[in-house]
Amino acid sequence: MRAVALGGGHGLHATLTALRRVTPDVTAVVTVADDGGSSGRLRRELGLLPPGDLRQALAALAAEEDGGSLWAEVFQHRFGGNGALTGHAVGNLLLAGLFEVLGDPVAALDEARKLIGVSGRVLPMSTEPLEIEAQVAGLSDDGAVRTIRGQVAVATTPGQVERIELRAPGRSGGVPKACAEALAAVAGADAVFLGPGSWFTSVLPHLLVPELHDALVRTEAVKIVILNLVPQPGETAGFSPERHLDVLFQHAPGLKVDAVIADRGSVAVPARLADAAAGLGARALFGRVADPNVAGSHDPDALAACVREALDAIGRRKGRRG
Amino acid sequence: MRAVALGGGHGLHATLTALRRVTPDVTAVVTVADDGGSSGRLRRELGLLPPGDLRQALAALAAEEDGGSLWAEVFQHRFGGNGALTGHAVGNLLLAGLFEVLGDPVAALDEARKLIGVSGRVLPMSTEPLEIEAQVAGLSDDGAVRTIRGQVAVATTPGQVERIELRAPGRSGGVPKACAEALAAVAGADAVFLGPGSWFTSVLPHLLVPELHDALVRTEAVKIVILNLVPQPGETAGFSPERHLDVLFQHAPGLKVDAVIADRGSVAVPARLADAAAGLGARALFGRVADPNVAGSHDPDALAACVREALDAIGRRKGRRG
Repeated sequence: MRAVALGGGHGLHATLTALRRVTPDVTAVVTVADDGGSSGRLRRELGLLPPGDLRQALAALAAEEDGGSLWAEVFQHRFGGNGALTGHAVGNLLLAGLFEVLGDPVAALDEARKLIGVSGRVLPMSTEPLEIEAQVAGLSDDGAVRTIRGQVAVATTPGQVERIELRAPGRSGGVPKACAEALAAVAGADAVFLGPGSWFTSVLPHLLVPELHDALVRTEAVKIVILNLVPQPGETAGFSPERHLDVLFQHAPGLKVDAVIADRGSVAVPARLADAAAGLGARALFGRVADPNVAGSHDPDALAACVREALDAIGRRKGRRG
Repeated sequence: MRAVALGGGHGLHATLTALRRVTPDVTAVVTVADDGGSSGRLRRELGLLPPGDLRQALAALAAEEDGGSLWAEVFQHRFGGNGALTGHAVGNLLLAGLFEVLGDPVAALDEARKLIGVSGRVLPMSTEPLEIEAQVAGLSDDGAVRTIRGQVAVATTPGQVERIELRAPGRSGGVPKACAEALAAVAGADAVFLGPGSWFTSVLPHLLVPELHDALVRTEAVKIVILNLVPQPGETAGFSPERHLDVLFQHAPGLKVDAVIADRGSVAVPARLADAAAGLGARALFGRVADPNVAGSHDPDALAACVREALDAIGRRKGRRG
């Protein structure tokens, strides 16, 4: 089964950790709009793709045997102290070096995955760094909607994010171009996964790369949305699960999904979510997918079991139709 | 043939590049007293072994096939721009990460050599960063000899370096401790090579680690000194080849060598060097080992041929004696 997971950050890490339990053929398509932390510093200083989310995806898919774990550990290691390197992950610096030497992020990521022993593939959604722009309400008493730029600013705004757009600062017209290998992965997938993660800054950006949006609409792959366990402070404070779905489809007209996976303990009114999902042609699956020991995190085994169940249910449904 | 080369910087790079043409079993024992450039910044910021000379040695021994060359290239790649990373070699950052994750420089270097495909081994002369202290004359008109501290300061002093010492700043008493694996390599070697390189800051420091000095005196390996082509401005300006030998043996009482390799075109009075070598029990070999196209650099093939000749000559001599 060829699985493709779209996202970024911790949410994508959770999906990938679950999916590698389901199939060895996992491709991550990762957002490149980050401008914070070690990634943001590298992006500003060297003009490269922000490597942090790509590094996290590689680490999530790294083999745990055959020496792969040492390099995965080195990749994830952050320098301490209080100097110029403080907070940089070694893997970010190594990816930056590979980007510069090879001049091709996809080739660089393929070398990195060989190094750390990844079964599967990690691709950027675009080979150019992108910028998030959000329309945000509630930042002032005059009721005005303001434009907020940059992933960190959007993720931490005290206002209400209403809509985001994605710009390619290096491209005339600013329309982002998709990574060709990511388009091919979506077109050839058996199943595509969206979420969980920071909804506006890690999940939605993929849908705003026009070629990637079109590929998602056209692919014959099964499409599954995995909802967050808790709303994200800043981005989606107070958002219900069905509001997450609404926002997703506002940003992706024409996209149909087959299933929505939600944590049973995190949904206040299951019937309302089931209705919202049905309105989009999808079936809602309520599993016990939260990790009881780590608040806000998915349990990889439980999520993998729920993914298998979703795939089986969709297979049966399609079988009946076909 | 088990060869061990002691040194640092460009000089060691030249020896290693020549020795890998002579035998696949080359061990580099590398100075760890550097405090300049990318290495010095990492040493100060993270308190680690300065990685630059170790990285250069790995690159010199890197295989040129089987994909080794990409990682050797990434290792040697330096970040440009004008930010916090400017001038850092990616390999220095990767070695720093490995040092921190593994907590053992020897294990870290063994992982790095597997990564870049090194046949042979690279070891630090000590597993702790060391500091060079030089007695320098001619810095003032009063004839006083002053103490200058640090590799960069010693290598660039306008005065005349008379003597150096080596201190382990982290050790009570300050006496440097040798890397155990380096001692074992010297003890088990068939041939040990000293030089070329910055005489006071790359070649002599090894002789000032007491255990390493003793191992060099005691080993049954053939010992060969490779002289510089040109005096080093700052360190050895105006030094004749025989003066280089004198300084070496002032710093290493009890050390005997079997051969001294010099470039025929770089020695003003060959008879004087031959006499100086003979006084130390060594035979002087004059080869055409300078690279005609790169001033101040050895030609690896010519140096390799001269090393083979030296080993043959010593073998015949020892054969006659035995």
